[in-house]
Amino acid sequence: MKRDTKMKEKGRLIVISGPSGAGKSSVVFRAIEGRADMCFSTSVTTRAQRPGEVDGREYFFIDLDRFHEMVANDELLEHAMYVGNAYGTPRKFVEDKLAEGMNVLLDIEIQGARQVMEKVPEALKIFIIPPSLEELRNRLVKRGTDSAEAIEGRLKRAREEYQEAVFYDYIIVNDDLDVAAEEFNAILTADRCRYPFRRHWLEEV
Amino acid sequence: MKRDTKMKEKGRLIVISGPSGAGKSSVVFRAIEGRADMCFSTSVTTRAQRPGEVDGREYFFIDLDRFHEMVANDELLEHAMYVGNAYGTPRKFVEDKLAEGMNVLLDIEIQGARQVMEKVPEALKIFIIPPSLEELRNRLVKRGTDSAEAIEGRLKRAREEYQEAVFYDYIIVNDDLDVAAEEFNAILTADRCRYPFRRHWLEEV
Repeated sequence: MKRDTKMKEKGRLIVISGPSGAGKSSVVFRAIEGRADMCFSTSVTTRAQRPGEVDGREYFFIDLDRFHEMVANDELLEHAMYVGNAYGTPRKFVEDKLAEGMNVLLDIEIQGARQVMEKVPEALKIFIIPPSLEELRNRLVKRGTDSAEAIEGRLKRAREEYQEAVFYDYIIVNDDLDVAAEEFNAILTADRCRYPFRRHWLEEV
Repeated sequence: MKRDTKMKEKGRLIVISGPSGAGKSSVVFRAIEGRADMCFSTSVTTRAQRPGEVDGREYFFIDLDRFHEMVANDELLEHAMYVGNAYGTPRKFVEDKLAEGMNVLLDIEIQGARQVMEKVPEALKIFIIPPSLEELRNRLVKRGTDSAEAIEGRLKRAREEYQEAVFYDYIIVNDDLDVAAEEFNAILTADRCRYPFRRHWLEEV
């Protein structure tokens, strides 16, 4: 009998992965431009706060004891070490946003994504790829921030990541940014039409 | 290694069902306006050809012997009797259109839809409903083509049909025609991004 269209729907947790250089951020930023229902998750980290960073904006800055406590209490949807510092996605932050009706974006590499999928199997999982690995190489070369060796490393890593794509619901090929962003939004719209999210419209019967 | 974007993709068979008066045709016609990649299936029927009807346009007109032969040879994706005449969806017509890259729409009641789902389990299945049964009643009354008794019959039938909605991938609530048509197109776009249709982009690895 829940047919009140103004009923606040819970937001969706959206896991976004894909090789470095695929243009994930560009696609997502283009797609969510002007949308008030989307936000990124804010991670916790044990690394030192840098000048200009605001606690709770770039990261929630915590110490290692608190980090271990969060892991022990299952307060993190995923966590990982990176260059000697610990990072994680706080479950409560995400759940609060979802409860407010916000869609929460997690731009996350595949190890972290796997942990999230285990804890939130119903998450919407989108994998963003370049049109080809050759094109990925071109983009990395053009970007000019990586050595030739680092680029080969990224390509090797991309090949490994591709093996995980099967665990994602959707694949977006970032060939044309506008098309990719349009696909991203179409996926969100279509997702809302899936049976589980619409069944309450049928329940008066 | 199939990464030629110009490679002709096979079309999708799209099964559309929902109670009479939900506005299925309006939603679909609004959605596919100007799209050259969409067509409706043309049914076979044993009923007499009427003046103005063209064989192969409204229907393929066949006799009962041919109809029985088609059923026996599994040449129909579904078939049903209606007011003493036989109707069916010719498999070859549908498969030829799909091979050409056309998306083929089947606007079909749930018994027929069930037969199609058995034969083409990968079909995209969309269920279109009115915002409420009360609203459905209002629309049927306003349409003025049915007696009060016939309207009650349609509502009873709608309640039965709702039990089948669980077998559909998506539910569109036709409250606002533009929103519903937009959702229809978003579903088609998102469907194309699903892993099985995009895996060839990953196969170079």
